[in-house]
Formats: sequence, C-alpha cells, structure tokens
Amino acid sequence: MHFAILTSVEHNIHLPEWSLSHRDLALATDAKWSIRKFRLMGGKQDGVDVVEIDNGQLVLSIVPTRGMAIHEVRRGAIRLGWDSPVKELVHPKYIHLEDHGGIGWLEGFSEWMARCGLEFSGHPGLDHGRLLTLHGKIGNIPASEVVVSVDLQPPHRIRVRGKVAERWFNGPQLELWAEVSTVPGSASFRLNDLVTNYSDREQEFTVLYHANFGPPLLEAGSRLHGTIQKIVPFDEAAAAGLEGWHTYGEPKVNAPEAVFCMYPTADAAGKSHFLLHNAAGNMGVSFSFFKDQLPYFTQWKNENSLNNGYVTGLEPGTGFPHNRSVERKYDRVPKLGPGANRNFTITYRLHDGPEEVAAEVQRVASLQKGKVELVPSVIPK
Amino acid sequence: MHFAILTSVEHNIHLPEWSLSHRDLALATDAKWSIRKFRLMGGKQDGVDVVEIDNGQLVLSIVPTRGMAIHEVRRGAIRLGWDSPVKELVHPKYIHLEDHGGIGWLEGFSEWMARCGLEFSGHPGLDHGRLLTLHGKIGNIPASEVVVSVDLQPPHRIRVRGKVAERWFNGPQLELWAEVSTVPGSASFRLNDLVTNYSDREQEFTVLYHANFGPPLLEAGSRLHGTIQKIVPFDEAAAAGLEGWHTYGEPKVNAPEAVFCMYPTADAAGKSHFLLHNAAGNMGVSFSFFKDQLPYFTQWKNENSLNNGYVTGLEPGTGFPHNRSVERKYDRVPKLGPGANRNFTITYRLHDGPEEVAAEVQRVASLQKGKVELVPSVIPK
Amino acid sequence: MHFAILTSVEHNIHLPEWSLSHRDLALATDAKWSIRKFRLMGGKQDGVDVVEIDNGQLVLSIVPTRGMAIHEVRRGAIRLGWDSPVKELVHPKYIHLEDHGGIGWLEGFSEWMARCGLEFSGHPGLDHGRLLTLHGKIGNIPASEVVVSVDLQPPHRIRVRGKVAERWFNGPQLELWAEVSTVPGSASFRLNDLVTNYSDREQEFTVLYHANFGPPLLEAGSRLHGTIQKIVPFDEAAAAGLEGWHTYGEPKVNAPEAVFCMYPTADAAGKSHFLLHNAAGNMGVSFSFFKDQLPYFTQWKNENSLNNGYVTGLEPGTGFPHNRSVERKYDRVPKLGPGANRNFTITYRLHDGPEEVAAEVQRVASLQKGKVELVPSVIPK
Repeated sequence: MHFAILTSVEHNIHLPEWSLSHRDLALATDAKWSIRKFRLMGGKQDGVDVVEIDNGQLVLSIVPTRGMAIHEVRRGAIRLGWDSPVKELVHPKYIHLEDHGGIGWLEGFSEWMARCGLEFSGHPGLDHGRLLTLHGKIGNIPASEVVVSVDLQPPHRIRVRGKVAERWFNGPQLELWAEVSTVPGSASFRLNDLVTNYSDREQEFTVLYHANFGPPLLEAGSRLHGTIQKIVPFDEAAAAGLEGWHTYGEPKVNAPEAVFCMYPTADAAGKSHFLLHNAAGNMGVSFSFFKDQLPYFTQWKNENSLNNGYVTGLEPGTGFPHNRSVERKYDRVPKLGPGANRNFTITYRLHDGPEEVAAEVQRVASLQKGKVELVPSVIPK
Repeated sequence: MHFAILTSVEHNIHLPEWSLSHRDLALATDAKWSIRKFRLMGGKQDGVDVVEIDNGQLVLSIVPTRGMAIHEVRRGAIRLGWDSPVKELVHPKYIHLEDHGGIGWLEGFSEWMARCGLEFSGHPGLDHGRLLTLHGKIGNIPASEVVVSVDLQPPHRIRVRGKVAERWFNGPQLELWAEVSTVPGSASFRLNDLVTNYSDREQEFTVLYHANFGPPLLEAGSRLHGTIQKIVPFDEAAAAGLEGWHTYGEPKVNAPEAVFCMYPTADAAGKSHFLLHNAAGNMGVSFSFFKDQLPYFTQWKNENSLNNGYVTGLEPGTGFPHNRSVERKYDRVPKLGPGANRNFTITYRLHDGPEEVAAEVQRVASLQKGKVELVPSVIPK
Repeated sequence: MHFAILTSVEHNIHLPEWSLSHRDLALATDAKWSIRKFRLMGGKQDGVDVVEIDNGQLVLSIVPTRGMAIHEVRRGAIRLGWDSPVKELVHPKYIHLEDHGGIGWLEGFSEWMARCGLEFSGHPGLDHGRLLTLHGKIGNIPASEVVVSVDLQPPHRIRVRGKVAERWFNGPQLELWAEVSTVPGSASFRLNDLVTNYSDREQEFTVLYHANFGPPLLEAGSRLHGTIQKIVPFDEAAAAGLEGWHTYGEPKVNAPEAVFCMYPTADAAGKSHFLLHNAAGNMGVSFSFFKDQLPYFTQWKNENSLNNGYVTGLEPGTGFPHNRSVERKYDRVPKLGPGANRNFTITYRLHDGPEEVAAEVQRVASLQKGKVELVPSVIPK
C-alpha cells in the first residue's frame, strides 16, 4: 500500500499542498487517476484544505477542515452538490453554532455531504436544559489526522481517511474516522466511517449523512426511488405533499420546505437502496447502505428558487432530524459503551445515460417489497 | 487602468505582501504615491491584512480582514482615528458577536471607520424573537475579493475595492463592494460602496458609517458644523446637552455618552455637508454625502478619559442606531428587492491650517438653510 | 542579558520557529540548556505556538497562544500535567466561552497550568445580569508580545515572558505580563506575573492558578501537604470527604468531584507552602507563594477514570471558584485602581527520589502552625 500523511497532530504535519498521480505510481489500470491537496485562500474560506481525488472518471473534493465533508462529486456533467446561498467553504473559525438560537451551522452549509452528529444532530432546542445546536458539531471540526492510501494490489482502491475528534472535558469523547474511497476508472465511491467512544461512560451519539442534491440531478420532474416500507411526514408541508414524495417540482421563491421520514427495507444482504434521477432519466445517482447501521432515512425537499438554494437532502441516519430530546423518546438515539465503536458504510454510484439510469430504476424496483405505506399524519414529537 | 488582485476567493489568491508605487508606474503627477499590502502578526491581530494607500499627501490604511474598515487616515499631524481601549485590529475569528448579550462587536472596536450593517445594525436586542447583535456582522467578515486599480488617465485615481459577503442559508444574501479611492497629491478621499441583494426575496438592510474621531481633531473646544434641519436627542444625556451639540468638552473619566439624532438638509446637488475642527481651528475634516442615500446622521459624543476612549462618532446612515425592531416602526429600515442594489458615496477632505478650516466653515455655513430645530424630548422608541 | 523577541504586535513579529541553546551562548554552567519555539499543526491545535525551555534538568512547555499557559513540566519520569479528554492544545479561535451556558472553556481544558481570570473567574453564572463564563477569558487570548531572555550573569536565569491583553471597549483594560523562568540545571521554576489595569476606572479582577496534576504524581495514596489554617468544603462531596482531604483514591468512573476551600498560613517571609507526592513518596512537587498575593487555595479532586480525566487541581488564587457575584459578597474580589498593578509569584520544585520528598515533607510540616481546622459545613454562597 502506498501511504502518505497529509495532516497529523501526532506527527506535527500539515501539508498545504501535495499530489500523487498515475505518473508517480504505476498501477495496473489505464485510468488517469490523481490525488491532490490544496488550500483555499481569501474570504471566509481562507486556510481551508481540500483533497481532490480524480479516479479518471469521478472527481471528488473532500474538505478535511470541515469535518471531512465532501464538497462535490462530478462525473462529467453529473454533479453531486448544490448551489447554496453560502458561496464559500467556510472555515470553522467563523462558525458560531449557538448563534441565532442554535442555527449557526447554516452559515457554513454548502457541501454536497455534511455529516451531522456526533453527540447530537437534528433541530436546535433544549435537551435537559442544554441548547443542542442544529446538526451538531462534527461538520465544523477540522480533521486531526488525514492520510491517503493507494492499494498496490488491484483494484487499487484510493482512500482518503480523516480523524475528527469531538472531545470535551466532562463531555463526550467521540472520534470519527471518516473514509472516502474509490477505485480508478470507477463510477462509484464509498463512505466507510467508524465512530468510537473513548470515554469510560456510555455515550449517546447520532450520525446523519446530510447529502444535498441540486441541479442537474434535481429539477422539475426528478424522481426518487427507494426500498421503502413506510413514509411519515415530518411536517405539515410533507403531509400535504405526501402522495408526491417521489417527484420534485420546479424552483419557486419561498416554496415551503417539506421533510419526509422514511423507514427503509433491506435486501438479503441487509442493504437499503435509493436512486435519484433527473426528469429525462439520463443522469442519476444511486446509493445503498446497511439498514442495521442506518435504519432511518430523511428526505428534505427545499424547492426554493435557484438563488435561495433549490435542493433535496437524502439523508440516511441513526435517527430523524428532531431534537435529541424528541428522538430519545422514540428510541432513535443509539449509545456506545466505553471503548465501543460503530461502523457506517454507504456506496454511491453515478449513472450516465438513459440505459444506466433505467437499469438502476429496474434494480431498485425489483428490490422493493410491496407497496410503500404512506402514513397521513405528522410523526409525533 | 493598472489592476492587481490581492485577494480572490474566485481565483484562490491571497497575497501576504504586495506593493506598487510611483517608481513602478509612471503617472502624470509629481506626487510620491505608493500602495502596499502587509499582514499583521501576533496577538489577536495575527493574520489581519492591511492595505495602505499613500497618495503623497494622505495615508489611508484599509483593513480587508475586518470588512474593509479603515483603520486611520493621516495628513501630516492630522489624523482620522482614535485611541480605543482595544489596541489591536482584532481578527474576526476572535469576535463572538452574541457575547455579553450581543455586544461582542465591542471587543474589536478600534477603527476610524467601521461599517455597520448589512442585515441590521444598531443596538442589540430582540427583533421578532431573534437577537440582533450590536452593529451587525459586516465589520467582522473578511473580504472575499480585494483589488487595487490605478487609472492611467489623469487624475490617476487610486482605488482599493473589496467584496464582503454577508450570506447565510435561509438568511440574507447581501454583498458589499466597498471602495476607497483617492487621487495622488489630494487631501481628499472617497468611499463608494455598493450593496446588493442576491436573494430572490426582498431583503431589509441597513448601512451606518461609524466614523470615529479622537485627538487631535477632538479636544475641548472642537466644533461640529453641518447642514442640519433638526436634532433630536437619542438619550437623556443628549437631551440635557442639546444646546451644546456642536461643541465638545474635555476628556473626563466616566463622562456619560450622549447621542444626537440629526436630520441633514441637502444642497442643490442633493448633498449634505459636515465639518469637524479642533479648538484652534487649524485642523479639520469635512465630508459630504447624498441625503437620499444616507438620510440620517448620528452624532455620538463619548467624552470619557483618553485611556477609556475619548471619541466622537459622526455617522451617516440609512437610519438611527436603535435596534431594527424600533427603526422599522419609524420607516427607517430600507429594503432591496431581488437582485437590487444601492449605492453610497461619501467624500472626505482633511483641512490643514486656519485658512483651509475657516474657508470650509464658511462654505458649510453658506449651505445651511435657516436655524437648526432642536427638539427637546428624546426620540421615541 | 541576551534577549530575543519571538512575537510582537508592536514590531509586527511572529516567528514560527526559533531556538537558542548552550551551543549558541556560552554561560558559566555545565547544564545542556536549550530554548526552542515551534508551531503545532493540524486539527484544532493548528497554528498554536509552543515555547519549550529545557534547563538541562527540567523541560517546560509554554503556550503563548493560550494565554501563556504551561502545557507540561517534566523532570525525567516526573510530570506536571495530566491526561485530559481534550487531546490537543486547542487554538482559541475554536473556543466559544459562552457555549453550553458558559462552559465553553472546557473544550480547551488540557494544560498543567491554566491561568483563570482576569476580569472574572470561577463558575459560570449571572453577575448583575451578565453571564460570566467559566474561569474567564485570559486562558484563551493569544499573547501579543513574547520575549525570551537569558541572564549573562550567574545563575543565568532563563525567562519567557508574554503579554496577554484582556481589553474591551467600555470593558476592562487589563493586561497580564506572565513570566516563567528557571535556572540552568535547576529542579525549580518560577512564575512571576504582573496584572495591570490600564483603564481610568477602578477595576475588579481575579487570578486563579489552575494547576492540574495527574499521574504519576496523582495516584491512589498520593498525599497533599500544606501550611493550612482552615479547610471548608465547597460542595457536598467535599463535606463528605473532609477528613480525607490530604489523600487521594484511585481512578473510578463517574467518581464525584470534590472541591475544598483552603485558607493557607504564611511563614515568617509571608509564604505559604504546599507539596504533592505520589504513594511511594519518591516523586513530588512542592510550591510556595506569598499569602498576601494569593490568600486563598482551592483543591479540586476529580478522581474520575483515567480516560475521563483523573486529576487534582491545586489552585492558589485571589479567591475561591464561585461566580464573582458570590465572591464579591465575601470580599474575595480585589480591585485595581487606575494604572495600578499587582504582582504574583509562585515557585515550584520537582522532587526526585524518597530523600528529596521526605525532606520536603519534613520542611512543610515544620512550617505548619498547629492543627488544620476542618469546617464541616459547606462554604456559604
């Protein structure tokens, strides 16, 4: 395995620039892969690190400074990402999570994939008298260790791994090892995360993969497919639009947000499957995850105007995005014993062209068991 | 036009040092002008950028890292600026606006000119249940783009322009292009700002030019002149000292602050004119602005001791410094439609010697229409 | 005197690296002394400066970026320091003191010696309607000036001095000159701090030396000795364990914290003396301070598990760690007049081997006057 340390608290390393490519390392692949790290400059993103993997087909940009978030993934014209009103990858030093009643997180919300957690996630509010801020801290903690590895054996998987520590005296001692990996030439990539409780106390935790999709995958007529048992509206807007959960409307100024709580089903391997594609059905993204790792799925429709952030969040999680005080009531707040850890794996694939999309629609449909149950009333708080 | 990019999020540029001078660029002027950028080091100002324009007569220091504030302007012994108890140009990463009930802004308050706004400015307090912090965010946001230009045609205006973005998901998408410019050899400089609403929603906004004057322009016997229709006290201290609004006392420990709300008049060109000069009348600064752009003017007298910050604020604005919840009641909170923008121009001139000052006193007096109305009771909230 | 400026706001200096040693400067000592400055990289400690003094016997690491805190002191296997759940020397830009109801300080709590103060210290809570945050601001303010000096005359004292400014418009203008010094080859070092009020107002202030000891000095059977007149429990846990104040138990998950308020006595020179040693009595640390400078002493027993932060705080101070609103009631909040200052000196010595420890136990015992009074009821609030 070829291995490089880009950032390390342990070894006092923090490279501003670094790169490795097929020209440096001969692998049994024709793919013109490369990996490079660079640092953003100016404005609120000054000092933010980005690690970009180009596997020859996909380009992924990972942001260690923002909790190993993924800014964008591209396959030609297909993009995982969105056009947030927040135009920079904001450095955590400018984020004050408790601001505006606990929604300071929104001042930095611009990535395709922001992890929410680890001590808590979901809506801001009091839990046992303490203000829990929107979507937790992990997305605004810079990685303490960042390593890149390339397998010298086929299929030559490229991995970027980062350790993000959410620690506090008298508070949690949770650490995330976040891994993003892909194989040269592939249209697919994988998240493989490990969350560990280093405290000697049992610790509640939560993980929500806040993946956000804008154009071109999102447009009027885009469709969501999934292996789903039941859908319950999170809010009144979702209750009103329950029948049309799987379709999207066009961008509209001040369109209300609608959030749907979904209970995925699993295939024989324990996996749940989802697919989003555009109206023409010639661009899509599918993803699968293990239902026992991530038993809940949140669909966030924000069909606001393009300037105001037209986006849908497709979010596997350990729970729904209520405040932890609500989630705990319904047993959706898992715990980790002293020293215990939990693994989370999600695989994404980008589909280019009507054949690829149609085949995937077919595949997901074949895995769906029966009809989706639509519960008309809003999920209890 | 000669043009240089010093900072750019768009181009990933952030130069720590840069300079240009009459030695590099031949212009049709004898003025020994220069422009240089440098970075401050140590303490709370570590990493703060300063761009200094020396036009051969005036020296202006601009602080892109603090929302394009202007630290000081000097013409020989004349200084626009003051001696704040805050001794450094504090990096925004150390400012927590919500601290101490929303007055965290005061931990970085030390410049001659701090812009207040853009979503809100004025006193901290709740507006529709949300805490609006003292004087808003714009003064603690680092510029995303900073460009310098020098006109190759006479009079060879030198411009420093910076873009400061106040953006937030589900919040405002306001951007300021702040421009400071001057002509080689001149005793005058100009602010020329553009505020744009990039949201598809109509957006309230506010701009207040918090310009702060200490010694030598401020001393016992200094005088303020202006084309003023009406003065209304903002507080009881101003009501008690209403007749003496135009004069200043000597520094005095724990002297109460007094704030005066002024309604300027405009000349035939639509401009309002103000002038501050020292007791001897041999040093002064005058400034003018368009009344339809900045219809309100706040005079802040803080005649505290020299160590505690002896200073007067002379502040043209779109409103007075109440909380927005108050200003809205009195129609002093303007709005920008989707994509709309608003321009603000203020011209300053430094006057050296009794002749220059006397001429300017004369000029402002000649533009005043009738007697200033002094309203004895405090302005309603 | 040999002199070097490592950081200076005044001179715009901030050296990332620097060193000086016995190889560079010939002194009349055989000790292999050295001083070096380096910068930490990665995670939340990226950009934090450390100045390390190795006097040939002791190694001290000082953290100018965190208010001149002392991370660790080592003499061979003896360490002053502890294993906090917070694993990095967190940069102040990541600390939000008002978070979690005013305990944000705990997100950066990991040093052997953190100074608490200057405007206030102690527990968070309202004082005259304002939230005072846990242990004040000084520990999260980066030093504005850092200088190193080495006396060219024997005994060649090495000094690291840093200025930390706690300033605020309309707030306090307190400055700390913190000095850590030692003599080549010595097992001892000295803190010598000066706190000055630069305001023209009288100013309340507080200093608490939050020195934290974990293994190997802390273990089951470790003992604290001191010249003590009276001990009053701060909380119920201390009241319950009052008789055993001087001994420590083994680490235990979720062991309650216990805090003891101590009133030291002074010897003929005005000094109070304390000593902590391990169970075997072959490793120890003693320290002395002037009772008129630091009349109160707080012992914090946190006998939690090793992972959760097994530690004892031995904390000379100008008061006890209640909120200032409580301390004021009992006249434990000193004031500084305009321009006035106050000096604080503490001398530490590390004892290696049973002979050194036994001699020191003997010495402290000989200075104790009579029996320690144990007050059974919790100190009033």
